[in-house]
Amino acid sequence: MNNIVLKNIEFLKSSFTLNSKVSSLEDILNWIKLQKERVYVNIQKIPLSALKNWSIDESDGRLKHYTGKFFSIDGIRITTNYGYINQWEQPIINQNEIGYLGFIVKEFDGILHFLVQAKIEPGNINFVQLSPTLQATKSNYTRAHEGKAPLYLEYFREAQSHQILLDQLQSEQGARFLKKRNRNIIIKINEDIPVYDNFRWATLGQIKELIKFDNLVNMDTRTVISGISFGEYSIEFDDLAETLDMMHNKSNIGFNMLKSTLENRKSLNSFDDVLSFMTKQKSFYELDVERIPLKAVKGWTIREFEIGHEENKFFKVIAADIKIENREVQNWTQPMIESLQDGICAFVCKEIDGIIHFVVQAKLECGNFDIVELAPTVQCLTGNYKTNESKNLPFLDYVLTVPKSKILYDAFQSEEGGRFYMEQNRNLIVMAGDEMPLELPDNYIWMTLYQLKSFIKFNNYLNIQARSLLSAISFAD
Amino acid sequence: MNNIVLKNIEFLKSSFTLNSKVSSLEDILNWIKLQKERVYVNIQKIPLSALKNWSIDESDGRLKHYTGKFFSIDGIRITTNYGYINQWEQPIINQNEIGYLGFIVKEFDGILHFLVQAKIEPGNINFVQLSPTLQATKSNYTRAHEGKAPLYLEYFREAQSHQILLDQLQSEQGARFLKKRNRNIIIKINEDIPVYDNFRWATLGQIKELIKFDNLVNMDTRTVISGISFGEYSIEFDDLAETLDMMHNKSNIGFNMLKSTLENRKSLNSFDDVLSFMTKQKSFYELDVERIPLKAVKGWTIREFEIGHEENKFFKVIAADIKIENREVQNWTQPMIESLQDGICAFVCKEIDGIIHFVVQAKLECGNFDIVELAPTVQCLTGNYKTNESKNLPFLDYVLTVPKSKILYDAFQSEEGGRFYMEQNRNLIVMAGDEMPLELPDNYIWMTLYQLKSFIKFNNYLNIQARSLLSAISFAD
Repeated sequence: MNNIVLKNIEFLKSSFTLNSKVSSLEDILNWIKLQKERVYVNIQKIPLSALKNWSIDESDGRLKHYTGKFFSIDGIRITTNYGYINQWEQPIINQNEIGYLGFIVKEFDGILHFLVQAKIEPGNINFVQLSPTLQATKSNYTRAHEGKAPLYLEYFREAQSHQILLDQLQSEQGARFLKKRNRNIIIKINEDIPVYDNFRWATLGQIKELIKFDNLVNMDTRTVISGISFGEYSIEFDDLAETLDMMHNKSNIGFNMLKSTLENRKSLNSFDDVLSFMTKQKSFYELDVERIPLKAVKGWTIREFEIGHEENKFFKVIAADIKIENREVQNWTQPMIESLQDGICAFVCKEIDGIIHFVVQAKLECGNFDIVELAPTVQCLTGNYKTNESKNLPFLDYVLTVPKSKILYDAFQSEEGGRFYMEQNRNLIVMAGDEMPLELPDNYIWMTLYQLKSFIKFNNYLNIQARSLLSAISFAD
Repeated sequence: MNNIVLKNIEFLKSSFTLNSKVSSLEDILNWIKLQKERVYVNIQKIPLSALKNWSIDESDGRLKHYTGKFFSIDGIRITTNYGYINQWEQPIINQNEIGYLGFIVKEFDGILHFLVQAKIEPGNINFVQLSPTLQATKSNYTRAHEGKAPLYLEYFREAQSHQILLDQLQSEQGARFLKKRNRNIIIKINEDIPVYDNFRWATLGQIKELIKFDNLVNMDTRTVISGISFGEYSIEFDDLAETLDMMHNKSNIGFNMLKSTLENRKSLNSFDDVLSFMTKQKSFYELDVERIPLKAVKGWTIREFEIGHEENKFFKVIAADIKIENREVQNWTQPMIESLQDGICAFVCKEIDGIIHFVVQAKLECGNFDIVELAPTVQCLTGNYKTNESKNLPFLDYVLTVPKSKILYDAFQSEEGGRFYMEQNRNLIVMAGDEMPLELPDNYIWMTLYQLKSFIKFNNYLNIQARSLLSAISFAD
């Protein structure tokens, strides 16, 4: 058995382990509660002019830090032939550097455990959420904060190739970030390492259990674990009686999700069909993004406390004064993004020829690195999805009115709390039946989990909303 | 046996067929000769100011067509942390649209044949080279030429998903084109279609034989056929006695290349290792490209007949007056790129544990869509590789001095004749022995052909020089 197969089996075992000798799920929940009680967070909206070290640069028109580090809020003009609106302007977060989102994993009693962090982020609902071991922008790890270096950074810097279990470049929200990507990485260590106060070991199964709660597991954790593949059934697991036993003892949904994850042969569309679908989309749709000064952005106004849309739609850029204990920098001000509407991200799936398939959308968003990415069946993050405006959005009505019995997963999940102010979106996975036709609208395609996990490995194929939903899929149900 | 497997076998059979009942290799060579004799091409260098409908736009500083179509020559300023020179400025071709490079294939006597075109391009050495069935920019197929629509376009427009055998987005030269990509596509038809005068059916094996000649098969053909995968030995070909027989009857090199193409299990680096290698490169290297007016490009001067580098290095932008028969437009003027130095692209390979591996380089070029692409072991297209300047370039000395007995492939190949004036580069594949250590410099990695063919499917992983070399690899030798 080669290393890759071993790795897949290790991840699979960890995903089946809900209670480990290291900590039970209850221990972890109590520990998070404790972490929350011990932290003091105060976040105040202040006038834009009261931001320390941040201002709109007259020469390039961006709202940025005087060092040029961290990120900036830029104005952009978008021209595209996708969708109904073919030209618009908006502010967007520009953070042209690739940060680390990294987990250290280690085996205890033969089961992989992930070193999770109870991390405080100012914009978090709950303030404390479970994050990867390391979550660091380049500014962070090159010490632009002039604070201490992030904990555990050295393990990632020094990781040898054989220790790296996952290493992917993944995108952030294309409607809010301009081509932003992070390095999603998992490294395995064998030696003992210090476990600091706000860190704890958890299995993949436990993390997936915690994703069932609202706003408990942060976006960065979800994106990293969404990238984990479990291999291919036909090749790797034939002789693996133990693993097979694990599977067969599980309930229907979990087992069927696993089958969709490991089965490479029985998909409605071949791998090449999906590639062709993406090539066609990228060849057809055009996305032209031009930088413009923030003050010139049509439809948006710079007010005392915010940069907002004239019709009070979408989102606003606010200024925040943040006081936090337990963090590298205790008090600072920064711009943040505040959403003005609820959002919903939903995958609709259905069993086709015995294998669960997902309705996947090729979606163009203005900050996308490569025009379109594969997105959930329904994604209207900032749209007025409860009003008439999005009435024609495919599948929206369906997921909003589907009977509870068909809902596999339903939770509110936060966007990244370092940039987004108290933003949460409803995450939904729906198992459709005969009412869902096989025929899909033009920009949609049926894919199995095996296919999604194959595409996820290559950068800029699955968007962050799709990855967030995939992270919630558990085989242990 | 599913469709994908069938497709792989069809491609494989075609690649083994050197003489078909439709035409022998000799027929094709004679036919190309005839085509050449029947064409009249006259290309004259003219002053930039004598270009009809092309001029440097004072408002945006680009050399462009008055319609804004076709392409433009832009100035760019590059800032990067890759290599020795961290900032420079240069002209670059900007053609922000995705064109078609497409083959129609059809079965004759059970063997796939490709409909090749003897295409005249003004910049071609030889003027006539073998091109795909369809080679059309968006301007072409939306009729910006105001000429007739390209032949066979309708077959591609109307192709159903089950007819599409290959459909990939692939990059052009990153040192000359700003993020340019084309849709590489192969469609299979069953019905009879007209074969026009300058078109002919050829097997994949025949095309690969023709790539052994200098400047006979154009870049667009090479990129499309480089993307063809042949599947996975262990899964698909076990029971395929006929194909296996074909393989085993072949000579050592061809058979070993085939093994490297089909064997997924025995590579030095795993698939995930290669992904991690790329993620690391993309996370580390920064590439910032800023548009500037052509007239402001430092180090370059606009002269009467050219835009050239002050030290007369790299390339120049020239103006050409072109007269051609057999083409949509018979006489026109356009800017072209003329290279000032020879170039060399070489893959070094070596058998490791019984499987041929290639030394692949992660190379940053200023026009790359995604920072770095996988490139040949040696690629110095425009550098002074015979002088001291590139003395430290890894493997360059090795490939220039390697004994002839280790050279598997050696031919001059042209760059695309619609943009490049008489540009050819030496293409070389070298089979190294014990003298080549397993340890490679930082930006290099060993990959099998199976791995290269897997990565090629995803856009912007293999650069055009790497793909050109892969297209020359034949199993029938």
